[in-house]
Amino acid sequence: MTALESERVSYGADELRLGITRKLAGFVAGLRYEDLPADVVHQARRGVLDWIGCGIAGSRHPTLDRLLPVLSALSGEARVPVIGRARRLGVLEAAIANGQMGHVLDFDDTHMGGVVLHASSPLLAALLSVAQTRPVDGRALITAYVAGFEVAVRSGQGAPGHHKGGWHLTGTLGSIGAGAAVARLLGLDETGTVHALGIAATQAAGMQQNRGTMCKSFHAGKAAANGALAGLLAEGGFDSSDEILEGKRGFCRIYSDVAEPDRVVDGLGSRFEIAANGYKPYACGIVLHPTIDALVAIGNRVGRRSDVRSIALRVHPHAVSITGVADPKTGLKSKFSLSHSAAVAFLDGAAGIEQYGDDRARAPDVVALRDKVTVETDDTLAKDQAFARVVLASGETADHFVEHATGTVANPISDAALTAKFTANADPVIGGRAERLADIVRRLEHLDDARALLGAATGDGG
Amino acid sequence: MTALESERVSYGADELRLGITRKLAGFVAGLRYEDLPADVVHQARRGVLDWIGCGIAGSRHPTLDRLLPVLSALSGEARVPVIGRARRLGVLEAAIANGQMGHVLDFDDTHMGGVVLHASSPLLAALLSVAQTRPVDGRALITAYVAGFEVAVRSGQGAPGHHKGGWHLTGTLGSIGAGAAVARLLGLDETGTVHALGIAATQAAGMQQNRGTMCKSFHAGKAAANGALAGLLAEGGFDSSDEILEGKRGFCRIYSDVAEPDRVVDGLGSRFEIAANGYKPYACGIVLHPTIDALVAIGNRVGRRSDVRSIALRVHPHAVSITGVADPKTGLKSKFSLSHSAAVAFLDGAAGIEQYGDDRARAPDVVALRDKVTVETDDTLAKDQAFARVVLASGETADHFVEHATGTVANPISDAALTAKFTANADPVIGGRAERLADIVRRLEHLDDARALLGAATGDGG
Repeated sequence: MTALESERVSYGADELRLGITRKLAGFVAGLRYEDLPADVVHQARRGVLDWIGCGIAGSRHPTLDRLLPVLSALSGEARVPVIGRARRLGVLEAAIANGQMGHVLDFDDTHMGGVVLHASSPLLAALLSVAQTRPVDGRALITAYVAGFEVAVRSGQGAPGHHKGGWHLTGTLGSIGAGAAVARLLGLDETGTVHALGIAATQAAGMQQNRGTMCKSFHAGKAAANGALAGLLAEGGFDSSDEILEGKRGFCRIYSDVAEPDRVVDGLGSRFEIAANGYKPYACGIVLHPTIDALVAIGNRVGRRSDVRSIALRVHPHAVSITGVADPKTGLKSKFSLSHSAAVAFLDGAAGIEQYGDDRARAPDVVALRDKVTVETDDTLAKDQAFARVVLASGETADHFVEHATGTVANPISDAALTAKFTANADPVIGGRAERLADIVRRLEHLDDARALLGAATGDGG
Repeated sequence: MTALESERVSYGADELRLGITRKLAGFVAGLRYEDLPADVVHQARRGVLDWIGCGIAGSRHPTLDRLLPVLSALSGEARVPVIGRARRLGVLEAAIANGQMGHVLDFDDTHMGGVVLHASSPLLAALLSVAQTRPVDGRALITAYVAGFEVAVRSGQGAPGHHKGGWHLTGTLGSIGAGAAVARLLGLDETGTVHALGIAATQAAGMQQNRGTMCKSFHAGKAAANGALAGLLAEGGFDSSDEILEGKRGFCRIYSDVAEPDRVVDGLGSRFEIAANGYKPYACGIVLHPTIDALVAIGNRVGRRSDVRSIALRVHPHAVSITGVADPKTGLKSKFSLSHSAAVAFLDGAAGIEQYGDDRARAPDVVALRDKVTVETDDTLAKDQAFARVVLASGETADHFVEHATGTVANPISDAALTAKFTANADPVIGGRAERLADIVRRLEHLDDARALLGAATGDGG
């Protein structure tokens, strides 16, 4: 008879420490702008500026020309501006489109605190969609963004085997974080936020198998739409499990071979994860960045037109395992190539959108130099470290060691550099509106109507 | 240098047998109505009839009153009828609503062939949505439904640890199957179908943690929408991995601790999984059905008004582990109660929608009889077997052993009983249109325009 004694379906739930999801939801529901330390607000402004610039640059990527016609045919009332375009879409469709644009160039912010996550694409695409439907000011937007960021990163910390297991965290954690962010934006109470988390998490998906395809950045957009739908359903009284993170059949256990749900709420409210967010100087996976730093530096030193005999790299093993493409034929694939990244960094002194386009992937000077690159792994190096040695035809040798790649927490990109990146991303697409947009973000906490952000980010093309 | 020698990102993919997804996609793209054995077509008709009846009955469930207003506010062009209602929604929103209606009563078809799956809710909700947007006849609908069914079940067979791992298969496999079904309906070629599978699978989600909440049936609706979006994106040229099922970071490995991708294509084209589909005579989880059969039979024999001293059940252990709720306070929870199911089966001679409503969950005669139920587990029993002994106050004892529960493959529900179930489901909601709808399904392969199905399934309320 013991199995019948409890109304709880028996999953051995007694062994579990429950209440984690509720505690997290309570934090989200209770977070006020006034609670946020100044550096957190500063990082939120940086995150918005960087993300929206990446979205503007990404808006012209060919992937979007496949996505947008399908979304348009399915779209709800066209009330949300699409970044970098002249059109509008429905709340969910715009969340998909804007989220995908933010991530398609792999140029958006990256959180490395135990979790490799591009949080802003799902979070901000969801928030800006919902912000078109009701009054939202800059402070409410910042607060919801910070809350969602916290939930996304912490959900991953509770599931430590999650990335290794093959998931694309921007899709999975992005859904949960976006659900939390939208719940906060809508002002849901603790129980409503529990349900938003439950509905969002139960939609969380995205496989690393889809790296290098259009689906990778789709994960970011779909996560935004999942989160927006979850928040709106929870607002409408739709319910879910109270224990979606810690439960026996919940996120931490299903999506990870190791479950540490206690970590989800460890230091909640005293440590803010958005303060550890990183911003990319280069338009490719973060593991390539120390190598690029090294080759840019050596190119500066010996001259970019030098005749090179060989380039020898020493990197963390992880860099090779996911970016070991020797001879990429397309721009998208070149983002997963160490040798390509080293070559363009030396030749162009840059690793931006142009360097990862189809033209540079196939350019004779790049192809020739790629062939001269050799790679050695060294597990005594950290992931943000690399060593490079360039030997010139003259016999001259130049070495460079990068201790912390630019854009990591230990070597953060400056506000000025971040603004320059924004300008380079936005100017070619939206021209004069870029400066106005940057100005809005600079004074984000004083913005009366968050719709101004997407309003200033639109472009001329369809 | 070995890591740089291949353009393939190095996941040790050489060890994998690739080409499974492509082979499955080739089957889907090549399947013709003329290829289908007569019993497969017959089962498809039974599946459509049963599903649409469950949807009509489910359309009045309170969960839908939470869902529909939110979907309406987000909806695309309102071109798809919502089952049992007078309103229409956009393609994706109707897929969610109709899919959720089909599953909300837990009364829809169940495939038990190694995979516990309610396939028709995601498949048919997706197909009928897309069928509103272009010409589709009955044969095309049947073919796409059969193809999607095959993909949903087989994807699960390739991931044998999937259910035990905590996933709700109607959400996960439903997404993949719906993507395949829509790809077939749209007439995509093999490569387009590979991409539809890749886009659908990378959205696949749904956790068992959400059992007993509104999210459980939402998984079915969301899977339908995921599949429809995947098919439409693939039609628009959106791509994905070619190896979403068998790849190192693909479905079989990420969603299951054991991966057997070869099983996905084992016997493809010679064995049709829809032929092994089961239809529920009772509105609750299939593991309760043998117990209900036994108590209905004993009640028939001894008289339902008999004064009962005790009811002793002997069941497969699985039945207790997921339906061990002794004293359910709501109709939704009573669907997870062995003692409730035994009591209503004896008292009412039925276990339909009424028996799992809030009223019977709280009725004094049911509550009193539930208290007299004891349960013993017996792992020598099969999942579709149960033994019951009723002892009356008079001392009289009645035993009944169920060898195969009604509605399983070994003891299928007859066409007449399935029609009676449909009528009982549909008549109270759509009245006279029910007979017309049944007639359309009976001659489904001769239907010129599949829109007639949803057209006849609408009701009067909003």
